Amino acid sequence: MNKTKIFNDPIYGFIEVPHPLLFNLLNHPYFQRLRRIRQLGMTHLVYPGALHTRFQHAIGAAHLAHTAVETLRIKGHAISAEEELGVCAAVLLHDIGHGPFSHALEKVLIKGVHHEKLSEIFMSALNEEFGGSLSMAIDIFRNTHPKRFLHQMVSSQLDMDRLDYLNRDSFFCGVSEGIISSERIIKMLDMTDDKLVIESKGIYSVENFIFARRLMYWQVYLHKTVIAAENMLINILLRARELSGLGNNLPGTPDFLFFLQHTFSASEFAENPELLKRFSSLDDYDVFASIKMWMSHADPVLARLCTNFVNRNLCKTLIQNTPFSPEQENEFRTRAIKTLGITASESAYFVFSGELENKAYNPSGDKINILFKDGRVEEIAEASDYLNSALLSKQVKKYFLCYPRELVS
Amino acid sequence: MNKTKIFNDPIYGFIEVPHPLLFNLLNHPYFQRLRRIRQLGMTHLVYPGALHTRFQHAIGAAHLAHTAVETLRIKGHAISAEEELGVCAAVLLHDIGHGPFSHALEKVLIKGVHHEKLSEIFMSALNEEFGGSLSMAIDIFRNTHPKRFLHQMVSSQLDMDRLDYLNRDSFFCGVSEGIISSERIIKMLDMTDDKLVIESKGIYSVENFIFARRLMYWQVYLHKTVIAAENMLINILLRARELSGLGNNLPGTPDFLFFLQHTFSASEFAENPELLKRFSSLDDYDVFASIKMWMSHADPVLARLCTNFVNRNLCKTLIQNTPFSPEQENEFRTRAIKTLGITASESAYFVFSGELENKAYNPSGDKINILFKDGRVEEIAEASDYLNSALLSKQVKKYFLCYPRELVS
Amino acid sequence: MNKTKIFNDPIYGFIEVPHPLLFNLLNHPYFQRLRRIRQLGMTHLVYPGALHTRFQHAIGAAHLAHTAVETLRIKGHAISAEEELGVCAAVLLHDIGHGPFSHALEKVLIKGVHHEKLSEIFMSALNEEFGGSLSMAIDIFRNTHPKRFLHQMVSSQLDMDRLDYLNRDSFFCGVSEGIISSERIIKMLDMTDDKLVIESKGIYSVENFIFARRLMYWQVYLHKTVIAAENMLINILLRARELSGLGNNLPGTPDFLFFLQHTFSASEFAENPELLKRFSSLDDYDVFASIKMWMSHADPVLARLCTNFVNRNLCKTLIQNTPFSPEQENEFRTRAIKTLGITASESAYFVFSGELENKAYNPSGDKINILFKDGRVEEIAEASDYLNSALLSKQVKKYFLCYPRELVS
Amino acid sequence: MNKTKIFNDPIYGFIEVPHPLLFNLLNHPYFQRLRRIRQLGMTHLVYPGALHTRFQHAIGAAHLAHTAVETLRIKGHAISAEEELGVCAAVLLHDIGHGPFSHALEKVLIKGVHHEKLSEIFMSALNEEFGGSLSMAIDIFRNTHPKRFLHQMVSSQLDMDRLDYLNRDSFFCGVSEGIISSERIIKMLDMTDDKLVIESKGIYSVENFIFARRLMYWQVYLHKTVIAAENMLINILLRARELSGLGNNLPGTPDFLFFLQHTFSASEFAENPELLKRFSSLDDYDVFASIKMWMSHADPVLARLCTNFVNRNLCKTLIQNTPFSPEQENEFRTRAIKTLGITASESAYFVFSGELENKAYNPSGDKINILFKDGRVEEIAEASDYLNSALLSKQVKKYFLCYPRELVS
Repeated sequence: MNKTKIFNDPIYGFIEVPHPLLFNLLNHPYFQRLRRIRQLGMTHLVYPGALHTRFQHAIGAAHLAHTAVETLRIKGHAISAEEELGVCAAVLLHDIGHGPFSHALEKVLIKGVHHEKLSEIFMSALNEEFGGSLSMAIDIFRNTHPKRFLHQMVSSQLDMDRLDYLNRDSFFCGVSEGIISSERIIKMLDMTDDKLVIESKGIYSVENFIFARRLMYWQVYLHKTVIAAENMLINILLRARELSGLGNNLPGTPDFLFFLQHTFSASEFAENPELLKRFSSLDDYDVFASIKMWMSHADPVLARLCTNFVNRNLCKTLIQNTPFSPEQENEFRTRAIKTLGITASESAYFVFSGELENKAYNPSGDKINILFKDGRVEEIAEASDYLNSALLSKQVKKYFLCYPRELVS
Repeated sequence: MNKTKIFNDPIYGFIEVPHPLLFNLLNHPYFQRLRRIRQLGMTHLVYPGALHTRFQHAIGAAHLAHTAVETLRIKGHAISAEEELGVCAAVLLHDIGHGPFSHALEKVLIKGVHHEKLSEIFMSALNEEFGGSLSMAIDIFRNTHPKRFLHQMVSSQLDMDRLDYLNRDSFFCGVSEGIISSERIIKMLDMTDDKLVIESKGIYSVENFIFARRLMYWQVYLHKTVIAAENMLINILLRARELSGLGNNLPGTPDFLFFLQHTFSASEFAENPELLKRFSSLDDYDVFASIKMWMSHADPVLARLCTNFVNRNLCKTLIQNTPFSPEQENEFRTRAIKTLGITASESAYFVFSGELENKAYNPSGDKINILFKDGRVEEIAEASDYLNSALLSKQVKKYFLCYPRELVS
Repeated sequence: MNKTKIFNDPIYGFIEVPHPLLFNLLNHPYFQRLRRIRQLGMTHLVYPGALHTRFQHAIGAAHLAHTAVETLRIKGHAISAEEELGVCAAVLLHDIGHGPFSHALEKVLIKGVHHEKLSEIFMSALNEEFGGSLSMAIDIFRNTHPKRFLHQMVSSQLDMDRLDYLNRDSFFCGVSEGIISSERIIKMLDMTDDKLVIESKGIYSVENFIFARRLMYWQVYLHKTVIAAENMLINILLRARELSGLGNNLPGTPDFLFFLQHTFSASEFAENPELLKRFSSLDDYDVFASIKMWMSHADPVLARLCTNFVNRNLCKTLIQNTPFSPEQENEFRTRAIKTLGITASESAYFVFSGELENKAYNPSGDKINILFKDGRVEEIAEASDYLNSALLSKQVKKYFLCYPRELVS
Repeated sequence: MNKTKIFNDPIYGFIEVPHPLLFNLLNHPYFQRLRRIRQLGMTHLVYPGALHTRFQHAIGAAHLAHTAVETLRIKGHAISAEEELGVCAAVLLHDIGHGPFSHALEKVLIKGVHHEKLSEIFMSALNEEFGGSLSMAIDIFRNTHPKRFLHQMVSSQLDMDRLDYLNRDSFFCGVSEGIISSERIIKMLDMTDDKLVIESKGIYSVENFIFARRLMYWQVYLHKTVIAAENMLINILLRARELSGLGNNLPGTPDFLFFLQHTFSASEFAENPELLKRFSSLDDYDVFASIKMWMSHADPVLARLCTNFVNRNLCKTLIQNTPFSPEQENEFRTRAIKTLGITASESAYFVFSGELENKAYNPSGDKINILFKDGRVEEIAEASDYLNSALLSKQVKKYFLCYPRELVS
């Protein structure tokens, strides 16, 4: 047993990589780059411990997949060695298409190319490199493999992704309330009619999972300071792209500038290996190092946005249950124009609003099913005496309005 | 109470910032930059969770200082509000002089300027900015304050720095064996003759602290893969500086290139506020983003070093208790010359050796003292029935030799 | 500082006892007896770690009270030193009236005397012994102290009792899903109009608290095997009392037999110090040691009940959402009569049914209130976008039916 | 998969019982009784959380054995299914011979019959009951099975017993310093020449294990208040036996009185199944319930000893590195005679002295061996650069003297 095949994970203890192919995937530069992409973007500005990366998460999720396969086998469901490897690889690579600060980037830089599509393109490229050994993983990922429940491990409302990230995010943020019992949920996993189900005695753990997810949304993922930081980043990218389009010379790392100056479609990524490779070299370092260079840029808008962002002089954020009126937003914009000496159109970079949505569980999506002892299967919304469809389908929306702190003394 | 004055810390739970001055120091860009400097450099290549920053550590250590002051007061030692603020500020800022990847940088970029000296210079600059309110903190830091035990909280063999980082590093690495009971040690703190002492019933906790520190050295800080990565980084910087000195045009972030191309003394930092400010803008992002740009540099040595480093194709490291013979090293260099097609002098960038030293406790330094119930004070090496001077003063040295994996198939 | 004034608590780390009176209360035999009364009765038959005692819980809750007082003071609410001591003592002693296996005992042995009433009687007795120094604690406990919010710390839907036991029970059971952030909830505590309120940014922690409490009910407190064990214990006591009333000579510890043979009212306890003292000598050891003696009793019903109980041959339990029909129960009783060779009336000791009620939050009780930034106060059921009155007032009931395993082969 | 075959363990999470035989052993009354025997006797008087039982420990140790077998198999060592079951059963039952408060009991009640001998006798009895299916387990336990390394898992200086109890005791006491990485040590297990060895990269974990064990001795197992309580218990038993021998009628539980009044040899236990069964009914409840009855016994010595013990009015304990002189002890005895109104011989029950021995590692015993990459095997004392034979063989002794608190005002 080679020592480098074991990872020390603060969540699960020791994780063994159970197959040489997985180990080789892990060592590929496409995967190693995930070490340089934080799972939660700028959340560490609020929860200083939230520095964990997509690398750790992907390994953790694959570890859970391995455990889930073992549980299902004990319960009598045949899963071949090849299928086991396929589902573990699919889970390991499910997020490989993420770029740095994905949410921001997907809105500006690689508009319209979703990270899941990119994950698939990366998997195809790796499959070629690894002589076709990822074909089954790709089938499972695309849900074209006949055993559909394997795909559910990769992507569903109770997939290995969520089972890992909720605990991992809770742990590194220090938010004990987001803790779920992934171990218990996985021990309760079963399969019926080609669908993953949870034994009925695990129902409270599933309820807790949905509830914890919702709490993490409000407390962490949609925390108002996180929202402010993320939108400031988007505005920095928009301004940079605008300046660049106007012919301004921007400093920055070459890969980042390249994607700032060009737009590509998913099919271009799929057909052009060089483009994919170039994308694969992008990480948090490119984005942040470039933004730091822009702190002293000649454009006062870009310079101010970047300086505020880097020094954590973040916008003040108001949150309420109804949309902010245009008047409210305009009042702040007028103040920004006066105070900061900027134009009306520039003021949109500093004062902005939007909506937040918390969908802990989507009853119209792929359901979480509960298996009762008598063989009945019910969706969690029916089976639970606490959660119900009305509650679960209530898509809680909130609205935010951000403005620079210097506008209010 | 303003919410931003509380931090969620995975180690201690909630940390309250107990004074507005400390809060203002925290918000200063000089301090915020510590968010972008990892505590353990490239250790995360071995322990993927080791991504925590000097920002978190500094706040944690200041929190412990606050607790220690409370304990000492309960035991009847007068500490004024001003002194409390002074020692907390001194602990908070004790590491502010660290640059990114300090160990590597101090050997190449800011040669001869120790980070403690830089911390002092930063503190002076901040003192000016904050109207002299850091004068007592500086006195305590420099050990010119009459109450010497306050300085011992900032810097000694049982200071708040060590009490925080051992647990924090253990936690994020997932190495449970490095856990110490900082809480218990602090509860056992007392003071006599202007010196910090530990009540005798805390002696096992102190032994455990020394032992855990030693374990963390071998298992984490001097782990052979960490040694390989750190030295590869040093060699990258050396090669870049060499190329730059030869007139090569290197891409990179401006601040990083500036320090790569110039050398400054401590007094230049002290006298030139602009220089200090420039240094303050350096962080992990500059170093890593620049190294990524060098992966495709025309110089094959630099390009190879950087590519191996970024893709975690790290050197193989041998460790033994005696120095490696020049013959052994030469054999690897010869192989490197042949295999990599490089010159003899270039081979030193790829094959290199050195020594490691583990000094968990230095009996010739500032001693850890134990206070017995009868009032006697004894140094830990005398007081312990397990540790003793011979053992403690044994400076365990080991020797390493690194070479590229591609040399051995 | 006396070392015995610090407790090592697996939940909070070190707990310091902040006042000599509290320390003296702790050392009183009335309080020390709580060391011999488990918090969760026979729950350890399902969760083997659930061996923690009322002693630990009472100290933990008093520790939280101390923290809560500090938080409220920081927020500007005056609480005198005497009031602080009063509320801490009241919380420390709130459960002192509990006997061993309270739920079972209250149904059989000290029928009609609620443990809260007994706590009050104990407090009065201690007040006499401690020269009146508990008068304010008693006022707070009885809610006759003018500051009503102090009573809410002792007894309300978000009191220190619940904030401690949820985490403590989760910890010792190993049920991570019951974890709440007591620390965060207490940091969010405020007071308005003489009522405890929670700052609005703590709303998710309160929701999580209600949800975790509900989960602990189903998963732990009302776990079907726990229900079986608890009801078997009740039946043992009933049978023993029945036999004793018929003049049978029962072995057992003298204190336990005394209460088995007599019934007392609350006022008898209040007026007769000797009776109180006698009650105070009862603990888990009396009950269990006596039951062990009864394993070989001449009465086959008692002997079988006790043998099954001691050797953990527990009843099989069915649980459903509607009451079991008399027919179902009768069928099992008939089988019991035949299989065990007992009479119809004896069969009720072996086959029994009942209802379970999970009331995580009672909207008709003392409300949990949320304080918004604009000064508004709303009940949690209104303030939450997730919980609502309909949901919260839904008193989920389930029904159980227990029968001996040997009835079904 | 039957749900009752999974245990929720606060240390390891979920423990699955991997074989029906083990499950049946678990359910046997001989094993269930371990639920009523605390692992650490009266230690909970110092560390209130230390209430865990031999039941939990035995299951935990068997779980580690199962993991160790898996690790050894991965490293290429053949272990048959029968051997796996044998070693797991042997570990599960290794402590089944323990009575309540073993240390005290073995000195008074079952003098000269060591708990390991009793474990073997219990195993033989169970083997008969389970149709010979424990024969291999017994061979492994007795070290008569040809594969000696299997016995080392059951009993050696790095056996599953120690690997479990160090962490378990640390956890429940809340003494974080005793934490070891059992998981890591087991992953580093290997076998060579029929001996368990630890891979050299695990050397620091082994050092940490020895060091943590030593710390737990001083901090917990030999804590002076624990020593006081344990010796008071021994004196209570001695006095009770003395009174009983003089024909006094003592109340108490029948099983406990039986063993108080008779003495048996190991061979009597082996030959008399009824005697073994009687012993098996003894647990903490018998001892403590009886002691409580004796609080009001006519003999003032017994009554005082028991009252002090139950109400935690424990002796004051002095500890020093040299034996206490007879004069010192006599001085306290004289005071006791005067103050308590007792005879000289009775004073020995109240004032007593003894020695404590901390043997974290015994270099003359079964050695812990380290396996180096070149195949060399060295004992830990040689292989370690920190521990050495001189240090390890130093049998640290301390001496204690206990006297009633009321002697010194």
